[in-house]
Amino acid sequence: MQVLLTVAYDGTAYAGWQRQQNAIAVQQRLEEALSALLKRPITVNAASRTDAGVHALGQRAAFFADDLRVPLGKLPQVVNGFLPHDISVTAAQVVPDGFNPRFDAVCKTYTYNTYCGVVPNPLLRRYSAYVPRALDVEAMKKAAGMFTGRHDFAAFMATGGSAKTTVREIYACEVIESQPRLITLTVTGSGFLYNMVRIIAGTVLYVGLGKIAADDVPGIILSCDRTRAGKTMPPEGLTLVEVEYGLTK
Amino acid sequence: MQVLLTVAYDGTAYAGWQRQQNAIAVQQRLEEALSALLKRPITVNAASRTDAGVHALGQRAAFFADDLRVPLGKLPQVVNGFLPHDISVTAAQVVPDGFNPRFDAVCKTYTYNTYCGVVPNPLLRRYSAYVPRALDVEAMKKAAGMFTGRHDFAAFMATGGSAKTTVREIYACEVIESQPRLITLTVTGSGFLYNMVRIIAGTVLYVGLGKIAADDVPGIILSCDRTRAGKTMPPEGLTLVEVEYGLTK
Repeated sequence: MQVLLTVAYDGTAYAGWQRQQNAIAVQQRLEEALSALLKRPITVNAASRTDAGVHALGQRAAFFADDLRVPLGKLPQVVNGFLPHDISVTAAQVVPDGFNPRFDAVCKTYTYNTYCGVVPNPLLRRYSAYVPRALDVEAMKKAAGMFTGRHDFAAFMATGGSAKTTVREIYACEVIESQPRLITLTVTGSGFLYNMVRIIAGTVLYVGLGKIAADDVPGIILSCDRTRAGKTMPPEGLTLVEVEYGLTK
Repeated sequence: MQVLLTVAYDGTAYAGWQRQQNAIAVQQRLEEALSALLKRPITVNAASRTDAGVHALGQRAAFFADDLRVPLGKLPQVVNGFLPHDISVTAAQVVPDGFNPRFDAVCKTYTYNTYCGVVPNPLLRRYSAYVPRALDVEAMKKAAGMFTGRHDFAAFMATGGSAKTTVREIYACEVIESQPRLITLTVTGSGFLYNMVRIIAGTVLYVGLGKIAADDVPGIILSCDRTRAGKTMPPEGLTLVEVEYGLTK
């Protein structure tokens, strides 16, 4: 039996999702918790390998177990008893054995938060980038809308990406001022290239700063030239909000 | 010349506002920053001695300096250069020499956040108490309203308080669901007894849990009996939002 978990975490203290040699990753903490519960080594497969410092509300991770010791509905609370406070399993469901949480994802949604007060707000700092400049939010809203559609996003991929194709489809991309001076970019797409959301956020920020015109965005996409897009924004503003599958619930 | 600063901080890492011997307090970090800037020892007087783990968006702290090396308008950014990321000076103004930030406060506003999801949300955990139970928010709204007015709040004071009188006036007290399952109590008053907001929050929570009826709140206040009020809620949900003075800006 394959079990799919929904996982939320504050990524500040972690070297990212993926288990590694010399640093603590979220995957390691989750595998340790499941292994402690089931009293045997458990390996999980995730929907997305989030980078160091990136947060999640809706990461997904699957594992095989025919020996669950608790009812599925109680599994989140029980696993959370083995997890630190900055990681929480929020849901659990059974999926077919052939299900793959990464390749079967239909779309993913991320948010990117940027705080633009004159001075930083310490209560937002952990979950947003800080830019001490007034931003043109209306121009940012216009720019965000120009990312929707099926495009070659080569200009929005960091070196180190290993994708076979750089074509992706963005279903929705919008900017709102979710709290005073907190600018939230929400983007939903079929999939994302390495650092793509952070580079889109940096490009939309450049529009807010007046460094790029909103109307220049389609040309930047068409150029496939990384040097024409904005900078890669820091990880703390990024949150993986949701991964959707074609599963019936 | 006396300068009044507005200070925001994430209290998680600190032993409270007040400087002490064997732990790091917010006051110490702010005094170190001002002393480094002015190249002489600076002592600040605050509006409120927030407890360990309590946050602030609008703490106030005053100090005397005739030798400010920077224009007042630039002071917040310059001081922030000497402060860690979890403390931020957000404003600075000149006040009369006789001004006292604690005793001249006309009213203070606090918020108390409680998250009541089935499982915790790691991105809210640092700034809210976690109660894994469904809450009756309408009953909590009704209960909150009953705290307004001038009352003897002896039932809402932790032992250790040293107030001459336990009479205080609450100008406004309300509950809203500020995000899904995040219940925010906002209370404005002339002043507060030791742990008073955290005990009010605990009493309103007990109403949400059905342990106390909203209509019992006036009787609990009248009783002056600490054992009839709710528990003292933990510090992480509490934020000092604003301190108001009769100053002209």
